[in-house]
Amino acid sequence: MKTTLDCIPCLFRQALDAARMSSADPAVHEKLLRDVMTWCGDMDMNKPAPVMGQRIYRHLRGATGVKDPYLKAKNSQNLLALRLLPELRAALKNAPDRLGLAARLAVAGNIIDMGGAGDPSLAGVRKALRQAMTEPLRGNFAAFRRAVKKAGTILYLADNAGEIVFDRLLIEELGPARVTVAVRGAPALNDALLADARAAGLHEIVKIIDNGSDAPGTILEQTSRAFSAIFKRSELVIAKGVGNYETLSEAPRPVWFLFKAKCPMIADCAGVPLGAHVLRLGK
Amino acid sequence: MKTTLDCIPCLFRQALDAARMSSADPAVHEKLLRDVMTWCGDMDMNKPAPVMGQRIYRHLRGATGVKDPYLKAKNSQNLLALRLLPELRAALKNAPDRLGLAARLAVAGNIIDMGGAGDPSLAGVRKALRQAMTEPLRGNFAAFRRAVKKAGTILYLADNAGEIVFDRLLIEELGPARVTVAVRGAPALNDALLADARAAGLHEIVKIIDNGSDAPGTILEQTSRAFSAIFKRSELVIAKGVGNYETLSEAPRPVWFLFKAKCPMIADCAGVPLGAHVLRLGK
Repeated sequence: MKTTLDCIPCLFRQALDAARMSSADPAVHEKLLRDVMTWCGDMDMNKPAPVMGQRIYRHLRGATGVKDPYLKAKNSQNLLALRLLPELRAALKNAPDRLGLAARLAVAGNIIDMGGAGDPSLAGVRKALRQAMTEPLRGNFAAFRRAVKKAGTILYLADNAGEIVFDRLLIEELGPARVTVAVRGAPALNDALLADARAAGLHEIVKIIDNGSDAPGTILEQTSRAFSAIFKRSELVIAKGVGNYETLSEAPRPVWFLFKAKCPMIADCAGVPLGAHVLRLGK
Repeated sequence: MKTTLDCIPCLFRQALDAARMSSADPAVHEKLLRDVMTWCGDMDMNKPAPVMGQRIYRHLRGATGVKDPYLKAKNSQNLLALRLLPELRAALKNAPDRLGLAARLAVAGNIIDMGGAGDPSLAGVRKALRQAMTEPLRGNFAAFRRAVKKAGTILYLADNAGEIVFDRLLIEELGPARVTVAVRGAPALNDALLADARAAGLHEIVKIIDNGSDAPGTILEQTSRAFSAIFKRSELVIAKGVGNYETLSEAPRPVWFLFKAKCPMIADCAGVPLGAHVLRLGK
């Protein structure tokens, strides 16, 4: 998905937020904003927005020496989600369609996003969960169910910390034995890393890999060989979140996307109302 | 008031909105955003944000040939406000403190702002009116009342179209014989021009002048000689709206500001909660 003009004010908003997470010095914040302006002035709008996001976060890490400004936030988000886990498990236990509900809960978890229009507060998560309990996913769930049933191997691309705890419920329904979970290779926003997958307990049930990249999405040219191989050969790929949708919507293989359409541009691109919970097959 | 770093994403948002009001050509929108990035890269943050706003709107007028992209919106806003006038007059008629209520209604009208966090819809205006009916202004109204009582001449700086209809109610309470109303000298956003003052019927009750400038605020160095003279010599100056507050908060004379603190930066600067209805004496 290309960068839209509407992404630009939002990228500046994100850059400012990230600068404030990394440093208390207003001079650092101003310098970063001016740098982003220089880069954006001749940016390639054909590339997805997370390419610019990556550049911003890399630059901040270099300028401030803070390797993972979102670490504390990610830890809190994992804890928040873990506290909700028992009640979600209880809801799942009695659900007539466990795979369906688990997928909807996993999409609700996508609200835990610090990139733009997310809301990682408990109130935000509760609201998304209520929506998940009452609304079907927008997309062809029957086809997704068939694809899941048929697949011998599944690659699951995680998105954010906290959200990855919700992903665990879906992964349990998919059947962990055939699932590999991939996280980002280095800090990018509040995107999940290996530590977050472990916080969610995923290391106890599935194989976890990292994709070798620090992009807040999956930029295939930047991922490790190991990741590329498994991305190619997995029979089913499930990609969570908006960053993965933006970067993989034109991937050279079918990918099932699960995300919450939190911003008007994403909703428009996916042809759904703002805030909708979406299941979409790319390619 | 200086430009804050948080103003920058908002300026881009405004530039994009204005570009779309002026042209249907995405290439024009993109070109403008890239131009704004170049300018912002070395902008003087010590100047108020409307200085950049002015540059954006001027550039758009030059690039598109559309002299007043907000003309239609302004006409609708005047009509919307005129339709509300009878019920507001009825409320005022029975008010124990007519000047107080008229000031609160005039501030409610400041929601009709297309610059940032405004909401010129009927629902937005109704919400602001409910707030005006129930909440006192944040500020020293007793001092304002004394200043009004004492003043032989009053200069009233209008802000937006639509809003200027609400201003009429306050101007009637101030006593039109001693009031001069000033509007912008040329199109800037949905800021009121002479035509809007006439739409509000102000030409029937007061002297109206324009300030000779196309800034979405009052940049004193740019205003006409006639305006400067009356600005200096008026015994009382009342300035409506956020653009006037941003540009005149350090003016070389006392100014009474009346505005709705629609964005977090303005609220922060004025020391009030977001959305508060504010009365403030500058200098």
